[in-house]
Amino acid sequence: MKKILITGCAGFVGSTMLDFLLKKNFLVTGIDNLSTGKFSFLKESMKNKNFSFIKADLLSAKNLSSYFSNIDIVFHFSANADVRYGATDVTKDLKQNVIVTSNILECMKKKNVKKIIFSSTGSVYGEASQFPTPENSFFPIQTSFYGASKISCESLISAYCESFNFQSWIFRFVSLLGPRYTHGHVIDFYKKIKSKKKFINILGNGYQKKSYLHINDCIEGIYKSINFFKKRVNIINLGNSEYITVRESLKKIKQLMYCKKKEYFQNTKKGWVGDNPFIFLDIKKISKTGWKPKIKILDGITDTVNFLNCNQWILK
Amino acid sequence: MKKILITGCAGFVGSTMLDFLLKKNFLVTGIDNLSTGKFSFLKESMKNKNFSFIKADLLSAKNLSSYFSNIDIVFHFSANADVRYGATDVTKDLKQNVIVTSNILECMKKKNVKKIIFSSTGSVYGEASQFPTPENSFFPIQTSFYGASKISCESLISAYCESFNFQSWIFRFVSLLGPRYTHGHVIDFYKKIKSKKKFINILGNGYQKKSYLHINDCIEGIYKSINFFKKRVNIINLGNSEYITVRESLKKIKQLMYCKKKEYFQNTKKGWVGDNPFIFLDIKKISKTGWKPKIKILDGITDTVNFLNCNQWILK
Repeated sequence: MKKILITGCAGFVGSTMLDFLLKKNFLVTGIDNLSTGKFSFLKESMKNKNFSFIKADLLSAKNLSSYFSNIDIVFHFSANADVRYGATDVTKDLKQNVIVTSNILECMKKKNVKKIIFSSTGSVYGEASQFPTPENSFFPIQTSFYGASKISCESLISAYCESFNFQSWIFRFVSLLGPRYTHGHVIDFYKKIKSKKKFINILGNGYQKKSYLHINDCIEGIYKSINFFKKRVNIINLGNSEYITVRESLKKIKQLMYCKKKEYFQNTKKGWVGDNPFIFLDIKKISKTGWKPKIKILDGITDTVNFLNCNQWILK
Repeated sequence: MKKILITGCAGFVGSTMLDFLLKKNFLVTGIDNLSTGKFSFLKESMKNKNFSFIKADLLSAKNLSSYFSNIDIVFHFSANADVRYGATDVTKDLKQNVIVTSNILECMKKKNVKKIIFSSTGSVYGEASQFPTPENSFFPIQTSFYGASKISCESLISAYCESFNFQSWIFRFVSLLGPRYTHGHVIDFYKKIKSKKKFINILGNGYQKKSYLHINDCIEGIYKSINFFKKRVNIINLGNSEYITVRESLKKIKQLMYCKKKEYFQNTKKGWVGDNPFIFLDIKKISKTGWKPKIKILDGITDTVNFLNCNQWILK
C-alpha cells in the first residue's frame, strides 16, 4: 500500500486531501506546525489508525528527513498562502515557500522519495496577456512576492526532477472556495459585512475578474491528474471554466447574509500591489483526464459562506 | 555624479564593468568576498580614488545595508556562476544566488536605492523550443539548479519593482569569453590539453550548439541598454548573432595550443545533467539600442586562450 506524506496537513487543501486519501485507505503521515493550519480540521483523521500526525516546523525541525523514511509520495501543500501581504514581510514567502520547499526536496533526496505533488498558483502568470491562460503561456514577469516564491519552488522542483530523476505534478490553482476556507476575499467581505462599520469599503474598483474553484473539485482534479499525467515534470492548471467580478461576488455574499449596507469601491484597477485584475486559467490540459469542475463559482461562494456561518471561530 | 555599487566586483563581469565605469568617471563601491573573485582583477581600480573596495560576504555580513547609503544604482553581479555543479551542492545556488539577492534587495529598500542591474542567464529558458529564443518565449521548465536560482532572482526583483517602485534591467547572458575568464568550457578544454593524460575526454557528443559573447561586447550591451530601456522591469537577452558546436570550439582551442592529442566524445546529447544541448538567444530587442556584437565567437575563444596563456595562475 502506498505511503503518503502531506505537508501542511492541517491547512485548507492539506486537510481536505488528507480526508480524501484516508477514505481511499492510504497510509498517511501529516506534518503541520499549526501556525495557520487548524488542529480541528484533523479531528476526524486523528481517529483513523492509518494516519499519523507530526507537529513540526519545516523551516527549523531537526531530523526532518526521518519523517520521509518509507514514504512513496509527498503532497507538499505547506505554504505562506496569502498573495496580498507579500510586500509587508518580503522574506516570509522566501522562507515559508522557497526555503521550506528546498528542505522538503533535500529530505526526499536523502530518503530516496521520488514523487512530489506541489500546490502552485495561477499568480505565477503575473499579468497574463492570454485568456484563458494556458500552462505554456508566454514567459511571464512576476508581479507578487507570492507568485515569485511559487515560481521559485516550481523551478527548484523541476531541477530536482532533471538532476535526480524525481517526478512532479505541479498544480497552478486559482483561489479555492468551500469548507475549511480560512483566508481570501470571501472571509474579508464576510468580516466587513459583520463589522460595526456602516459601509463596506472594497479594495480596487470591483471589476477585477477572478476565477475560483471549489475545494472538492480541486482535490478530485489533483487525484485524477496524478494517475493520468506521466511525464517527469507535469505542470497543470486547476481552475474553473468561468470567472466572476469582485462586484458579482460581493452581491452574492450580501444576499446570503441579508446585508443592506452600502459598499464603496476605489478608483484603482488593482485591489492591492501585485493584485491581478484578471485571473482565468485554461483548463484544456486537465480536461484530458475526464475531470471538469462540477461546482459553479456562485455555489462555491454559498458553500463558503455557510461554512463561515457554522464556524465563527475561523474569523478570530 | 551617479554613485554605483557593484556586487561581485572582483569577478569576471564585475571587475570588467568596474573598469568601464571608472573610465567613465563614476564613483563606484565594490563588494566581493573574494571566494571566486580575484583581487588581482582589481589591481588597476584600487589606484583610482573614485573606487572603494569592501571585502564582505553578502550572505552573512552584519550591517550590509550601510554600504548602500547614497547609492544610486546597484550592479548585482555576485553569484555562484557555474551551471554544471548545481546538483552536487543543491543549496549553493539557493544561498549564493537567491538568498543573497533577497539580502541585496532588502538593503536597497532600507536605503531607498531604486535601480538594479542583474546578471541572469539564458539557462532560464531550460530546453527552449524556439531558436533563437526571444525574451517572451514560452513559459519554460527549468532543467538546472543554476537556471532555477536565476529565475527565482529575476522573479524576486520583479516583485520588488511592482511593490516598491524599483526599476530593473535583467540581462539573460549566454556564456561569456575574454580576459578574466575563470570558468567554463574553454578553461576545461585548456586544462585537458595541458594535462598529462594522453587523450581528451569531452562531456557529451560534442554536437551541443552554444552561443558565446565576448565580455567587452557584454559590458557595452549592458551600458547601452540601461540608457535605452526605461520600463519598470526590463528583461534583455545578451548573446551573439551566431553559435558554434562544442566540436568546433575544441578544434579552435587545439589549433591555438598546437595540440595533437586525440579527443573522445560521449554518446550523450548533453554534457552533464541540466546541460542545454542548444543555447542561442534572440537579440532583436537589444539591437534596438544600436548595439551589436563586434567580436566573433572564434575570436573570443582566441582572446580567452591568450588570456589563459598569460595568466597560468587562473588554472590553479
